[in-house]
Amino acid sequence: MSTFGPQIEVAIARVRADIARLHGELTANGLVVWTGGNVSGRVPGADLFVIKPSGVDYADLAPENMILCDLHGNVIPETPGSDRSPSSDTAAHAYVYRNLPEVGGVVHTHSTYATAWAARGEEIPCVITAMADEFGGPIPVGRFAIIGDDTIGQGIVEALTGHRSRAVLMQNHGPFTIGKDARDAVKAAVMVEDVARTVHLARQGGELIPIPQEAIDSLFNRYQNVYGQAPQGALK
Amino acid sequence: MSTFGPQIEVAIARVRADIARLHGELTANGLVVWTGGNVSGRVPGADLFVIKPSGVDYADLAPENMILCDLHGNVIPETPGSDRSPSSDTAAHAYVYRNLPEVGGVVHTHSTYATAWAARGEEIPCVITAMADEFGGPIPVGRFAIIGDDTIGQGIVEALTGHRSRAVLMQNHGPFTIGKDARDAVKAAVMVEDVARTVHLARQGGELIPIPQEAIDSLFNRYQNVYGQAPQGALK
Amino acid sequence: MSTFGPQIEVAIARVRADIARLHGELTANGLVVWTGGNVSGRVPGADLFVIKPSGVDYADLAPENMILCDLHGNVIPETPGSDRSPSSDTAAHAYVYRNLPEVGGVVHTHSTYATAWAARGEEIPCVITAMADEFGGPIPVGRFAIIGDDTIGQGIVEALTGHRSRAVLMQNHGPFTIGKDARDAVKAAVMVEDVARTVHLARQGGELIPIPQEAIDSLFNRYQNVYGQAPQGALK
Amino acid sequence: MSTFGPQIEVAIARVRADIARLHGELTANGLVVWTGGNVSGRVPGADLFVIKPSGVDYADLAPENMILCDLHGNVIPETPGSDRSPSSDTAAHAYVYRNLPEVGGVVHTHSTYATAWAARGEEIPCVITAMADEFGGPIPVGRFAIIGDDTIGQGIVEALTGHRSRAVLMQNHGPFTIGKDARDAVKAAVMVEDVARTVHLARQGGELIPIPQEAIDSLFNRYQNVYGQAPQGALK
Repeated sequence: MSTFGPQIEVAIARVRADIARLHGELTANGLVVWTGGNVSGRVPGADLFVIKPSGVDYADLAPENMILCDLHGNVIPETPGSDRSPSSDTAAHAYVYRNLPEVGGVVHTHSTYATAWAARGEEIPCVITAMADEFGGPIPVGRFAIIGDDTIGQGIVEALTGHRSRAVLMQNHGPFTIGKDARDAVKAAVMVEDVARTVHLARQGGELIPIPQEAIDSLFNRYQNVYGQAPQGALK
Repeated sequence: MSTFGPQIEVAIARVRADIARLHGELTANGLVVWTGGNVSGRVPGADLFVIKPSGVDYADLAPENMILCDLHGNVIPETPGSDRSPSSDTAAHAYVYRNLPEVGGVVHTHSTYATAWAARGEEIPCVITAMADEFGGPIPVGRFAIIGDDTIGQGIVEALTGHRSRAVLMQNHGPFTIGKDARDAVKAAVMVEDVARTVHLARQGGELIPIPQEAIDSLFNRYQNVYGQAPQGALK
Repeated sequence: MSTFGPQIEVAIARVRADIARLHGELTANGLVVWTGGNVSGRVPGADLFVIKPSGVDYADLAPENMILCDLHGNVIPETPGSDRSPSSDTAAHAYVYRNLPEVGGVVHTHSTYATAWAARGEEIPCVITAMADEFGGPIPVGRFAIIGDDTIGQGIVEALTGHRSRAVLMQNHGPFTIGKDARDAVKAAVMVEDVARTVHLARQGGELIPIPQEAIDSLFNRYQNVYGQAPQGALK
Repeated sequence: MSTFGPQIEVAIARVRADIARLHGELTANGLVVWTGGNVSGRVPGADLFVIKPSGVDYADLAPENMILCDLHGNVIPETPGSDRSPSSDTAAHAYVYRNLPEVGGVVHTHSTYATAWAARGEEIPCVITAMADEFGGPIPVGRFAIIGDDTIGQGIVEALTGHRSRAVLMQNHGPFTIGKDARDAVKAAVMVEDVARTVHLARQGGELIPIPQEAIDSLFNRYQNVYGQAPQGALK
């Protein structure tokens, strides 16, 4: 039954459990409604990732319902959940994993404020220190792309390559975030909505004060190396 | 006691349970306050629908409190709940069921952002892909109508006939949504508030980027036929 | 021990329980933060009302902590809770009960949107049908008054006398609502915040469509007489 | 093992429990996302304070995980939690405790509306009575400062010295609040977000009405001396 050897099977089981649980963070943080949004995670040591099924209630997201795919987004047959369709954004996730080997997790939502910036195709300027910490500068915009083939994946990779930000606002669509693992990508999804909301509201009230570039650099470097209980290191 | 034969009685029981439970989605999604809002569902195979009683607390909405009506909104006597008054929007629901035979569920709320667009009598432009997916274009406005007779029902049917959208913003009043069943109409109620909020906020920040019509068409067709675990098909 | 006779003591016990429980609706509906806000209820058949103690956590609001006052706001000695100070708004509640005998409940909050209109001293125009139903027209503004003596109570009575609205926005301060009983006043507090938010957002997006006065009259009359499970009748 | 004598150890244990529990108020009041924000409390009778560890989930904040520091922000070795890094804002908290001996608690968040005012470097004008009660006037802005050394602490002390407000908006960063103990500082963090939100929304809708200075003074004096179950007294 086991097709990948015991070590990889253990890794798959862990990623399934993480992905099922992390979807709960999307609802707890108000990033999704109904069945929208999806989290995926790469299986360490294998050309595989785990993703949410399409259009299934958040209450029904157990590890055994998660779907195992290869890096072209093909469902691995005869594995738990393989009788269901994976998320309709699976091709985009797969494209990211194929092209950005350092990425271990991908998240997509239509969170309100980030999507509002995306509907204007406008990058979020870096005017709060939390944003310098987390993203090291502005949140970029990715070009308009139709759902379903590689064009969304291409847009994500194009926008994030050589960029400090782990979040991109796909034009007219919504945010995609990446991370060293799925939890890190979920954190980026939470933080991009938080900064999208704060900067939106700040600008409604008048003129924003920019943060000098050297202060942004200093904040980003400190946070990536000092914050938390063990050095995290920037994703790239 | 049973007036409709065993098969229809089973269908009625199922719809009662669905309608009672689906009201919980209105509160969980923040679409209603106090006793506002209502969900109804057609009984498959009969000229009947089930609707919420008027002005009753959300905590008290059990299946046996739901009210069974004919397609003219008359309460069916000597059935559970028939000692209560049905929702004050019952006439509007009944009119929709009489005139749109493909509709299996109707929802009405005063959800904040959708009602804000309704207070301006302004349709919501289709500038985010989730809106193209779900509604296939803008959300239309229905003409101002007084509560209590057929004029609201007429306004809903008038606005939604020949339209992809399953949601209409009744002017100065709030959204009504329809669906192939009650759950589908509740989903539309959740999504119309979500897009009303996102597009409101997007426009507060500057100029919106329109989505080309052929991209809207392509998104709508894909989502109606591919998304989820089994083809859904557009309502109409 | 009992100073009011058995019938009044039963009424007091019922109002204590209601007032303690109804404070939970203020938090559940997001109308208050920390220890802010207060609900009071008149004791039927007596010149007494029950109100919340000052500055006490919402988690600690049990019936026996509620404070019994006469209609001048004096705490009735040697009754449960009488060792505590009543709400700092007690004088305003007392003034309302003394001057508006048909009022059975009073609520005060600093709910966000209603207080925002109050900070501009601007009445909320009646542009949504739910507002016509519930308040029969615009929500008026009461004059600026310092907390602690009768001036707030005077401002409330002045603004609401001869007005359909059960809510008033005290300038620079926040909403006060009245009702035939405490639950009715809490409902008004929930609804005034709901309409304050919706109309605020509606106006941010462009020009509002007014509702014709005869439609407002018709909606108000219908709702006060038909909505719910038994005729309510307008407060006044 | 115990290095401070039994009386101080009891005080430390009490502060640890308070600080762990009070972090729950930050999440319950929607002031923080992910692992952001921090509360600290001075240990009465000792040159010590207790603070949250850096980058740890809110669900994992038990008393024994809190970190004991001296007034220079050095972790006290071989005490519970001392194997972890303290909050990255520890230097700022320590600076406040060293320089403002009357302060018993410090809180920092990136709460949305307060941070929006901070991104414009704009003080919040005192236009609602709740703000006069709680803060006695406008909420001041502190100068831009980089995280990690004493500059944030200096900015806080500079802005709050001689000011009635217990809250300061650090430019491009977010609010810091102080209090006579940690609970009082948490209350100030809740209230500063509440007034930041209300005044933001009020101003979006048009011109604000100022409150006369003598009314602000009167409200502040009354609230600091009369509100609640026992006189609180202003912090300073």
